Amino acid sequence: MTADRTKRNCLAVILAAGESTRMKSSRSKVLHPVAGRPMIAHVVDALAKAGISDIALVLGRDAEKVEAAAKNAAVKNSVHIQTERLGTAHAVLAARDAIAKGYDDVLVVFGDTPLITETPLKAARDGLAKGIDVVVIGFETADPTGYGRLIVEDGELVAIREQKDASEAERAITYCNGGLMAIDGSKALDLIHRIGNDNAKGEYYLTDIVEVVRASGGHAIAVKAPEEELTGCNTRAELAVIERLWQQRRRLEMMLDGVSMIAPETVFLAFDTKIERDVTIEPNVFFGPGVTIESGALIHSFSHIEGAHIAVDAEVGPYARLRPGANLGEGSKVGNFCEVKKAEIGRGAKVNHLTYIGDAIIGEKTNIGAGTITCNYDGINKHLTQIGAHAFIGSNSSLVAPVSIGNGAYIASGSVITMDVPDDAVAFARARQENKEGRAVLIRERNQAIKDAKKKAAE
Amino acid sequence: MTADRTKRNCLAVILAAGESTRMKSSRSKVLHPVAGRPMIAHVVDALAKAGISDIALVLGRDAEKVEAAAKNAAVKNSVHIQTERLGTAHAVLAARDAIAKGYDDVLVVFGDTPLITETPLKAARDGLAKGIDVVVIGFETADPTGYGRLIVEDGELVAIREQKDASEAERAITYCNGGLMAIDGSKALDLIHRIGNDNAKGEYYLTDIVEVVRASGGHAIAVKAPEEELTGCNTRAELAVIERLWQQRRRLEMMLDGVSMIAPETVFLAFDTKIERDVTIEPNVFFGPGVTIESGALIHSFSHIEGAHIAVDAEVGPYARLRPGANLGEGSKVGNFCEVKKAEIGRGAKVNHLTYIGDAIIGEKTNIGAGTITCNYDGINKHLTQIGAHAFIGSNSSLVAPVSIGNGAYIASGSVITMDVPDDAVAFARARQENKEGRAVLIRERNQAIKDAKKKAAE
Amino acid sequence: MTADRTKRNCLAVILAAGESTRMKSSRSKVLHPVAGRPMIAHVVDALAKAGISDIALVLGRDAEKVEAAAKNAAVKNSVHIQTERLGTAHAVLAARDAIAKGYDDVLVVFGDTPLITETPLKAARDGLAKGIDVVVIGFETADPTGYGRLIVEDGELVAIREQKDASEAERAITYCNGGLMAIDGSKALDLIHRIGNDNAKGEYYLTDIVEVVRASGGHAIAVKAPEEELTGCNTRAELAVIERLWQQRRRLEMMLDGVSMIAPETVFLAFDTKIERDVTIEPNVFFGPGVTIESGALIHSFSHIEGAHIAVDAEVGPYARLRPGANLGEGSKVGNFCEVKKAEIGRGAKVNHLTYIGDAIIGEKTNIGAGTITCNYDGINKHLTQIGAHAFIGSNSSLVAPVSIGNGAYIASGSVITMDVPDDAVAFARARQENKEGRAVLIRERNQAIKDAKKKAAE
Repeated sequence: MTADRTKRNCLAVILAAGESTRMKSSRSKVLHPVAGRPMIAHVVDALAKAGISDIALVLGRDAEKVEAAAKNAAVKNSVHIQTERLGTAHAVLAARDAIAKGYDDVLVVFGDTPLITETPLKAARDGLAKGIDVVVIGFETADPTGYGRLIVEDGELVAIREQKDASEAERAITYCNGGLMAIDGSKALDLIHRIGNDNAKGEYYLTDIVEVVRASGGHAIAVKAPEEELTGCNTRAELAVIERLWQQRRRLEMMLDGVSMIAPETVFLAFDTKIERDVTIEPNVFFGPGVTIESGALIHSFSHIEGAHIAVDAEVGPYARLRPGANLGEGSKVGNFCEVKKAEIGRGAKVNHLTYIGDAIIGEKTNIGAGTITCNYDGINKHLTQIGAHAFIGSNSSLVAPVSIGNGAYIASGSVITMDVPDDAVAFARARQENKEGRAVLIRERNQAIKDAKKKAAE
Repeated sequence: MTADRTKRNCLAVILAAGESTRMKSSRSKVLHPVAGRPMIAHVVDALAKAGISDIALVLGRDAEKVEAAAKNAAVKNSVHIQTERLGTAHAVLAARDAIAKGYDDVLVVFGDTPLITETPLKAARDGLAKGIDVVVIGFETADPTGYGRLIVEDGELVAIREQKDASEAERAITYCNGGLMAIDGSKALDLIHRIGNDNAKGEYYLTDIVEVVRASGGHAIAVKAPEEELTGCNTRAELAVIERLWQQRRRLEMMLDGVSMIAPETVFLAFDTKIERDVTIEPNVFFGPGVTIESGALIHSFSHIEGAHIAVDAEVGPYARLRPGANLGEGSKVGNFCEVKKAEIGRGAKVNHLTYIGDAIIGEKTNIGAGTITCNYDGINKHLTQIGAHAFIGSNSSLVAPVSIGNGAYIASGSVITMDVPDDAVAFARARQENKEGRAVLIRERNQAIKDAKKKAAE
Repeated sequence: MTADRTKRNCLAVILAAGESTRMKSSRSKVLHPVAGRPMIAHVVDALAKAGISDIALVLGRDAEKVEAAAKNAAVKNSVHIQTERLGTAHAVLAARDAIAKGYDDVLVVFGDTPLITETPLKAARDGLAKGIDVVVIGFETADPTGYGRLIVEDGELVAIREQKDASEAERAITYCNGGLMAIDGSKALDLIHRIGNDNAKGEYYLTDIVEVVRASGGHAIAVKAPEEELTGCNTRAELAVIERLWQQRRRLEMMLDGVSMIAPETVFLAFDTKIERDVTIEPNVFFGPGVTIESGALIHSFSHIEGAHIAVDAEVGPYARLRPGANLGEGSKVGNFCEVKKAEIGRGAKVNHLTYIGDAIIGEKTNIGAGTITCNYDGINKHLTQIGAHAFIGSNSSLVAPVSIGNGAYIASGSVITMDVPDDAVAFARARQENKEGRAVLIRERNQAIKDAKKKAAE
């Protein structure tokens, strides 16, 4: 054992076996997403960043799905099914086999506090590294009503006092128990086993470990986390609060890093959204997972972007829908009511209006006219559309894939292109116009007669 | 007379004759909508839920429109025009004929407090049922400045003290007059007639009824409502506050009932929006009246939905516009930049991109290609488009209604369909493609020449 | 010199030479936009409204761009480059040539407080007109920590005390220095030159002018501005706060003037947006510069409007994109997924669905079918489309400009119109439909075979 946290190994036990009844959900609450990924994945990510290699998942409902959601390349997960609900200490013991393998540190966290960051987790482990037996993560709060108060004397945590047991003086304490804690791995099982259930509900509470360890001559302390990081989730209303806090935190980081948001509260980021300096984002933009945006790009309002890369100085929206595989080249433009999916948009190319580009490669400086559709689907298969550089696709064209259009080619407006078009060729596929003079009068008369007849029939 | 509220009859007098000058509006303020229906309809709805059968509308401006807006199948309305403005007591007397018909309870409410719910109204009526003569609805507030204070002694309301008449001690009272009250129906007219106008403005104030009833040996009490429920509306800024409070209340109820909203503050519900459990709503969705959504459906961002039914597991948006009569079958999909109006979308059918479907019936599992338009309007009449099951409509097709497309039929991309298509037939209606090699160079030269000529002309 | 402000001339010195490093931006912070125009333009506008004719811009980074952004027809700007950074007094002296020209008043303001209005600026100048030498603009704040406190005795400002130098009693003062000040023009240079740099950083602080002027027997006072108006901008997060405050202020003004906003916090206005009474704006609408909306218009959700005029009773959106030059006539309609650019939409004309109208003139009562595209661009030039009154453009039509369509003309759905259409004529330009019975079965088999082959190849 060493006093250097980074040289100690650590098992984290994630308690995630709750029934989630107040979520009124068909799935476990830890599967509900925050910033586009399951709540529990956020917790695992924070643990990985705190240098933890092994995780014991204590699961109940939807165990397989939760295990899948908790997968993370940086950690090794084991699954432990909790079948009875006899309190948090009892829940931790569901993972006794994992704990028994022997770790320097054991960290107990919850699956439904996705705002936790590595900072307090590291601080708790640092406490163990200094020889403390139990380190509780607490928080300062303006209104402590209902929380367990942390009774600290001479730097030691002497008790966690529940609201109902607290004296008047203790109730004034605003330093509260966050529930998460780190325990000396060599003593963890012994300490937890010694927790009793002599209380109203007859349950085993992990918080009693403080008295247990002190009774045996050991030491406990508390370390502080921001209150926000310990926000738990019991209802979908609380889920929305967590999402809001997450978004506020991330937006602020981005703005301080040089991203402009006219109305940050209307920009919704995913857990992995990456945006470089000097990008401007107008109000009302939604990011799904997998988006990277390079410097100087401009994202107009009402854009919905997922799985896309947007290069330097590109312009997107308003009302642009970028779906997975959209790859926008430098200075390119995807404008209003345009959808791009699995497609390369070349440098300086323009897809400005009312267009669907799917399964396509578009060359540099090519201009895609309004209303163009790549007909990539035959009902069963998807096919590729290739368009060269400096081409011009006339408005309202249908490009029936697989099809290839050469560099500098010119497609007449309203054409249905089913055959390849060579470089610099013009392709037409539309009918010749015919005007019938005076005929509109007859059409209006006929249509009015239909209306009159309908009206009469309805009488 | 009985002590059981539910066996007593009740007339509610709604005061709605104000000039609404601060609204700066071309219509009466009670016609302004909250959650998609006129303010006054909210008040009537709360009255109906409180078991009230008869309503006397005291109206001034826009009386006919207000009467229409106040229509509610559960109550009977009478209209009373207030011609002079001599205070609230005088306003109530505009409805003297209705009151004189004889009711156990008379309830006086305002047309511009649309957040009121049945709970305090029932509580006020319960007071009457217990033999109290006047029951005032009050509220606790953090900042009582400007409100009339409720002076309560030994459970009885002894006076409503206006700000200017209040002693220092009375000003510290935070229990204030909400203006709404219930009056013993057998005494109401007599009590109100005895209210004087010996005050600065020479007006008859209904609040003086407390002193009047006590002077005659009667009893008054106050019952509490949440401050929010008594929020009144004098300006459009206050209207926006009321809308916000309404939305917050309803969103919270929905979330607690199992609806997920990533950013609830960006979801705008209508008064009658119904959403089942396990529906997820992304940020920025607007609901007009008449929407029902079944369990498991997913509503993406930037959707605008009105008068539509969305069945189990259907997926909507982003950027879907569902208009009245849109009926989406189980597991169906309406995607980006699609508008659906008065149309059945069959189970598992897909309308994914840039499409207008109006006056149509689409069968199960049918795929509607990007850019498809049902041409339902001839300038005068609307016509029906019928599409069978398992059909495939190629992209950028125009379906000129009335037209029928059979089961399993296949429409080639870019076709204009004017005749019916049998089951399993393929329909083409597009021109053959022609490539003119090298011609694009000439077109570019010609277009450049036009530009040069324009430039020269401009010099 | 006169005691009437409006008869005194005034030079304003705008300090805008900061490096803006915390903005992490490729441009000077005063170029960053608030409500659609550069921050510094807001400051200049407030100065112009306060009756100031001459402005000395003290610039560093991006001086040319800032000069351009500060251009305003009502004022004359001179540019002064600050090369060293030795404190605010030193910065003002960069403009010494301008000050030396002789003005009654000299006003010192910052380029990064764009919320300032003319009111406190006028108040400060009024102080000078009354014979005061230095007038400091201050603000009351709930939390004064970190600000210089204004020490006022008998109505005179005796000192500005920095946080670190303040006594306990002084720290309790909540009246703080806003940094802006007005100085008697005849004494300004002399006073500023006498400011020393005997402090920790060795810089010349303009705030020391209070002690300087009093030491010479002169008088200083403070005038109050709302705290909000003095909000400065050092990071993009602060920029977002400023934008929010600006928007809140303007939305409130508009609502009080008779504009309905269902969710004002989701409506984003530009600095020059003009909206008349009885306009309703649904949630989520973005205004770029140059928009005017007349009475009775209805703007639905998700509209993005810039450089457009919307006449009486017109209806816009949802999802309408109006770009510069869009001019919507009375009672006209531009609906979902429609883009209008540089185009007249006649009275009562309808552009309802999935349409691009660019460089066009559309007559009264004309109906533009869903999916219509004006093909206005040939790759090099833009061309005009003219459509008469009472015309009917069938859905999915392409109008290849330059082209003219007569009054009452009727374009068949799916047509590509390349030639002019006379009044009351019908134009067709589409292929005849052909049905191939049973062929869809073969197509499905062929497509399935392609899929199977791909799958096999992938194995």
